[in-house]
Formats: sequence, C-alpha cells, structure tokens
Amino acid sequence: MTGNQHPAGQSVESTEQDVRAKLPRRGLLFGGAAAGLGALAAAGAQLAGAAPQDGTPAAQPADTVHGGGTVPFYGTRQAGITTAAQAHGVFVALDLRPGTTRAGIRALLRLLSDDAANLTAGRPALADSEAELAQVPALLTVTFGFGPGLVAAVDPARSPAWLQPLPAFTVDRLQPGFSDGDLLLQICADDPVTVAHAQRMLLKDSRSFATVRWIQTGFRRSYGSEKPGTTMRNLFGQVDGTTNPAPDSAEHERVVWGGGDIPAWTENGTSVVIRRIAMNLDKWDEVDRVAREESMGRRLSNGAPLTGTQEHDEPDFAAVSKLGFPVISDVSHLRRARPEDGSQRIFRRAYNYDAAPGSGGISDSGLIFVSYQADVERQFIPIQRRLDEMDMLNQWTTPVGSAVFAIPPGCREGGFIGEGLFA
Amino acid sequence: MTGNQHPAGQSVESTEQDVRAKLPRRGLLFGGAAAGLGALAAAGAQLAGAAPQDGTPAAQPADTVHGGGTVPFYGTRQAGITTAAQAHGVFVALDLRPGTTRAGIRALLRLLSDDAANLTAGRPALADSEAELAQVPALLTVTFGFGPGLVAAVDPARSPAWLQPLPAFTVDRLQPGFSDGDLLLQICADDPVTVAHAQRMLLKDSRSFATVRWIQTGFRRSYGSEKPGTTMRNLFGQVDGTTNPAPDSAEHERVVWGGGDIPAWTENGTSVVIRRIAMNLDKWDEVDRVAREESMGRRLSNGAPLTGTQEHDEPDFAAVSKLGFPVISDVSHLRRARPEDGSQRIFRRAYNYDAAPGSGGISDSGLIFVSYQADVERQFIPIQRRLDEMDMLNQWTTPVGSAVFAIPPGCREGGFIGEGLFA
Repeated sequence: MTGNQHPAGQSVESTEQDVRAKLPRRGLLFGGAAAGLGALAAAGAQLAGAAPQDGTPAAQPADTVHGGGTVPFYGTRQAGITTAAQAHGVFVALDLRPGTTRAGIRALLRLLSDDAANLTAGRPALADSEAELAQVPALLTVTFGFGPGLVAAVDPARSPAWLQPLPAFTVDRLQPGFSDGDLLLQICADDPVTVAHAQRMLLKDSRSFATVRWIQTGFRRSYGSEKPGTTMRNLFGQVDGTTNPAPDSAEHERVVWGGGDIPAWTENGTSVVIRRIAMNLDKWDEVDRVAREESMGRRLSNGAPLTGTQEHDEPDFAAVSKLGFPVISDVSHLRRARPEDGSQRIFRRAYNYDAAPGSGGISDSGLIFVSYQADVERQFIPIQRRLDEMDMLNQWTTPVGSAVFAIPPGCREGGFIGEGLFA
Repeated sequence: MTGNQHPAGQSVESTEQDVRAKLPRRGLLFGGAAAGLGALAAAGAQLAGAAPQDGTPAAQPADTVHGGGTVPFYGTRQAGITTAAQAHGVFVALDLRPGTTRAGIRALLRLLSDDAANLTAGRPALADSEAELAQVPALLTVTFGFGPGLVAAVDPARSPAWLQPLPAFTVDRLQPGFSDGDLLLQICADDPVTVAHAQRMLLKDSRSFATVRWIQTGFRRSYGSEKPGTTMRNLFGQVDGTTNPAPDSAEHERVVWGGGDIPAWTENGTSVVIRRIAMNLDKWDEVDRVAREESMGRRLSNGAPLTGTQEHDEPDFAAVSKLGFPVISDVSHLRRARPEDGSQRIFRRAYNYDAAPGSGGISDSGLIFVSYQADVERQFIPIQRRLDEMDMLNQWTTPVGSAVFAIPPGCREGGFIGEGLFA
C-alpha cells in the first residue's frame, strides 16, 4: 500500500466520510504503510509531518508538538508491548454478554480492530461522535487480549494450556472487580484525553456484545518530563523494571515472543498477566531508607544493587558485609525475583495507579503490574511462587486483582485481531 | 533573597537535610527569587538549568526535558490560577477534624505551605519518604482555598459575604461526596507522578488535623501534545473556554483579582467555584453534529460562533437565517452564558474527568468546572442563574458536586498561606 490509501476505507460508511471531509486536515495522519514486519513489531513511532500523504518527506520543519505521533496498528505482532511505554494506560476487561455467539464475537473483534486502526492513526473511529478528539493520537496503541471465556466461546480446543486464572497465592486478596475477564482492551497513549476518547469509542462499539467487568487507569512519568529511557519509579519511590530485557534484544524476543508448543493461531502472539498490587504507603512510611533498600536489595537513589553503584550493575549475591551477612539479603525482592533458570523471565510494562481513598484513608495507591511472556506457566508462575513464599516487599504490598489473557498476533489491513482463532 | 538560599531552610529538620544531601543534585532546583509581584502573578515558568544557584544563566544548553520546570510558590498572589493550566490537576477537599483549634489550623497551614514551597521547587517535602519522586516538579503548583468552615473556625467575623455554598439550582443533583469542604488543595502539574506524590505528601502532613472529604482528579491534553495556547476541548468534543479573559489582560486582572469591598486578609486573593459536571455521553451520542452545534452556539470544528469562522470571532446575536430564525439560538449555551453586564465575568480553568463507570455503564465522564472570580455573588451566581433557567446543554449535563472556597493571597518566604487571617 502507499501512504495515501485509506487503510480501512472499505468499512467506513459514507456519512462518516462526510464528517471526516469537514475536519481540518491536521491530525488526519495516514499511518505510513505496511513496512517490514520486524519494524512494525519494534513499533517505531513516526511524527506528524514526517510522513505526509504523498510519502515524501515533509517540506515544513519538524513539528515539536508531539501529539501527532503514531504507532502502526497493522503488523505481524500487536503494538503496545514492545512499544516504549506511553505515559498513560487504561486496561479494560470486558465480559461477553450471555449468549454472544461465535459470529457475534467475530463481528465485535472486526469492529474494534477497525476502530483501533483508525484511532491509532489519528483518524476518527467509525461513527466517531467526538471526531475532533481523535486528532491527537499521541502514540496511541490499542492491544487486545483474549481471556479463557472468549477462547472457549470460539474454539475451546485451541486454548493455550496456560490460559486460565493463576493458581491461588497466599499473599492474594483478590477482588472479582479487578480480576479475570473475557476480552482485554489495553489502551495506551502519551495524552490522557486521547486515552479517554479511545476508551469511549471502543466501549461504545462493544456494548451490544459485552459489558465492562473492570477498568484500571494508570500513569507513568509524562511524555518528555524525564530523559527517554529512564526506568520508571513506582509510588514507593523504587526504580521499577531495571532487569527488563531490552526491546531490541534477542532476550526480549525469546521472553515475549518465544512461542514454543502453542496453537497455531497464537504464533506471533504472547500472554499478559495483569495484577493490581495495592501498595500500603502508610505502612511503608514507617520504614527508613536503609530498611527500604534492604527489602528491595537495591538503592533508592538510582536503583543500583546494594553491591553496585549503577542501576544496571550485576548484583553480587555472594558479597558479605564485615559482619558476615549477605549484602543483598536472601529475602530481598531482588534476590527472590531473580530466576533460578534463564527461562523464568518476563517483560514488564507496569503503570502506577492512585485512586480516591476510602473513608478515613488518605491514599489508595499501587501498581498495575503488567507482564508479558510467551508462556505464563513456564515463565511467570515460578517467579510468583518464589515471591509468594518469601519476599520482604510482601509486608507492604497486596495483590488485589489478577487476570491472564492471550495476546493474539497482529493483523494485516482488512483483517482483524484474532482472526486466526476463527480459521 | 538570592538563588542559593534555602527558602524553607529554617523549618527543615537536620535528619531531612541529611537525606537531601544524599540525593543527586539533579532536580534540586532553587526557585528563582522573589521577583516582581506582577511577574509572580503571571507565573512565568522557569526551566531547569535556566536559573542555577548562582543566578547566572546556565552554561549547559537548555534541557529539552520539561520535567525540571518550576513555578515560584512565594509571591503576592498564589500560583495555579493565572498559571497556564497544566495537564494534570487534582482537587482535594479536607474537613477539619472536630475540635481542631485555631492554633492547629495555623500549624497545618504553615506545614502545608512549607511542603508546597519545597515540592513546587523540585525539592522533597518535609520528611519526604519518597524524596526521589520530588525531583521532577513539571511546573507543579499547589493552591490553597479556605471553605466557610475553616474561616469560621479562625475568625468568623472576617468571612467574605460570598463564602458559602451556592444557592440551590434546579439542575443540581449534588452529592455530599463531591461538595463543600473546609480546606482545598489544588495540585496541578504536567506530570501525573508529580501530582500523585505531592498529593500524598500534603495529605500525610494534613492527617492529624483533617480528613479527606473528596478528591477529584482531572486531566487536559498532555504537555506539548498540542500547540501552546490551544483552547481545551471537553469530552463532548467542544472547544471549552474560548471567552476566558487572557491571563495578561486588564480584564483578567479585574475579573480574578478585582477585590472590591473585601476583608483585608483577602486582598490579592480571589475565590474559586468547583463544580463537578457529569456529562451524559450516551445521551449526547444521540445528537447529530448540527444539533450539537446549535445547542452550543459554536462550531465543533474550531469553536467559532455559528455566525463566524474563527474561534475568537465575536458572536452576532442579531444575525438571522433566511427563514428568519436567529443563527445563534436564544437558548444556546453561548447566548445564555453571555453576561448581561460586563461585571458578570469569570475565569475558567477546567479539567476533564473520566471515572470508572458504575454497573452496566460504559462511562462516568464529565468536567471539573473550576472558575475563579473576585466575587462569587456578583460574578458567578448571575451567570449560573441564567444557565439554570435555560440552557440547551442542560439536557446532557448534570452538576453533581459544588464547592466554594476563598483563595487567600500568596505569602513571602518564611510566611504561610492564610497568615493574614490570623493577624
């Protein structure tokens, strides 16, 4: 395809075309072509003005306004995973309405895929009632995940073995209102208005087929407020995610997209575990910096292991203090989370949450823990089992929600997310 | 003062100093000096590196990372009003604990003023338990407002006449959980982590004296995602706030800071009305673009009045269509909100909200309507009365929260917000 084609034109009704024709041209970005599959997976962002409709470089100087940036929706793999985490993320779990047929699910997925393709390119969704709000894509990505119920409703024989709720952990205090679900919509962008609008459009087109089970809204540092590549901090102030495999690494490829013995429709897909981790800031307040660093095994200042000076220094678990105690405690989070073997790796892409506190409280804060891995059973669960057995951080954190979804592969223009499951 | 003094140094305990000494220097910005009063009121932002400790221009090139930007806290007037609206805003209303004395309120205000001075300068708050989170001020402002209860507890004789709940309007469906309160903390910044951290620190230092009555979290377009100066859109997609008096105008000065017959302690102060306006997106969806524009009296595309082509064109209320009907309907929001006389003007600084929907719904969205005016009774209420009587927009909007606060003047270094009330 070339840049001046309308990727989803065939599914857009003429009335909608009319509305679009009246919109200012700014923001009507045409996500630049199919590109190589690897390039799509890497989700390199393109900025407004850099790829005008005729495909030639823009004559005008690059716009410093960042809201025009887009991430291609179509590709072998879904965007929003390898994509550098945007500042805002909302995670919506839907339950299929009772009696929704296989054909209904297919129609829903086609509709939502078209909406996602349009919105991520800075175009209005189908029958977008607030079309102007679509004009600032701000690196919007929409990532779909399938819960056990959706796969079972379409073709139960082809469910990956790991697609089920996690085993119960002793630390869990799970609330149904933050757990499970049939269909995940992960909506991320560098602008909160963009996220709100995309969420509204996708839910509007879902409501004949599904109801909202839960919504979790999260945030990280805003676009450009810190140097790119700075590891996020959670609301405990900890550097959070240091050991994540770099998106362009072979390790990342193996951890997230490693496949293995999986149903064909999940090839170039992965899995996501979303756990809502309440962080007790009041109790955390009672702990001084030394004890905080001990519990984590890392320095608060820059995330370095207690045996090192830089964030990415390898921890030395053999190092002992003058008194003979390990410098990094055996029950620190760093030590306990460390894989026993190299296959127990995950790729994290977490968001902070800060909800209104309940009566008498002053905060309801925590982490929307989001982890991608090719195989939940083989990669995620062993780590979580170890942390469940012993992790000093458990004193201040409580999992209150948990959900597992299969992330289907991406799709080509004209296709829809999950089509392989219907093949 | 010079740039290398510590504005709140005298109130900082030595243990806290020790913690600060261990922090990396980056982000420990020293908000540049007292400056002219008008300049402070205009709240011009200064960027990290632009005003180093010795007061000379930074040698290093300007940092493109925006998180180091600060807005001075100390000044004749409080920041966060004339300050260009940051992307994120949280509004917290506190209730004083029963029996809190005048001395207690004074201690609370001093403590919170010190915290605000530190946090807005990119420094940790007193005993900041997540000190590293304070290093990205991102144009943080903290603005304090006093409810009727606080003023009555200190000196009831000096309460401005307008400091009371608004009269009941027929459109109101007010919830106590979004209404009234003794002390307002308005926390705004261009980074949501910054807002969350400041909120936590201020509430932590409040809790001996006060409890949380309500918290409303809102957002606008993110920093830099649109051209600076773009009028915000609300979640109905409407351009919202076109007629706001420009912050550097004489009109703004009169509307917001106009004073008049007021108690001396409120000089260089103003008032704020915060109303939570639920916007029924499901019902709004049923309305086509023509009817939407008619209800507003403005075009959706760019906010121009229906008699004009550009956002800031003066509306022509006398213009009629070929059929003899007014082009701008007499019951449009634009027509009804228009002041009958020039004194009925307000300065708006609204934020969108998008909360998790209740059971069966797909959205709980609306506007945190925030309006500053020198005199609530004279400026705000007449407008709201007219809108209450008739405004086409009322079909889709419902006020669910309402609160009025007096905004005291700013303070100098060493002082605290509201000190005049205790004089």
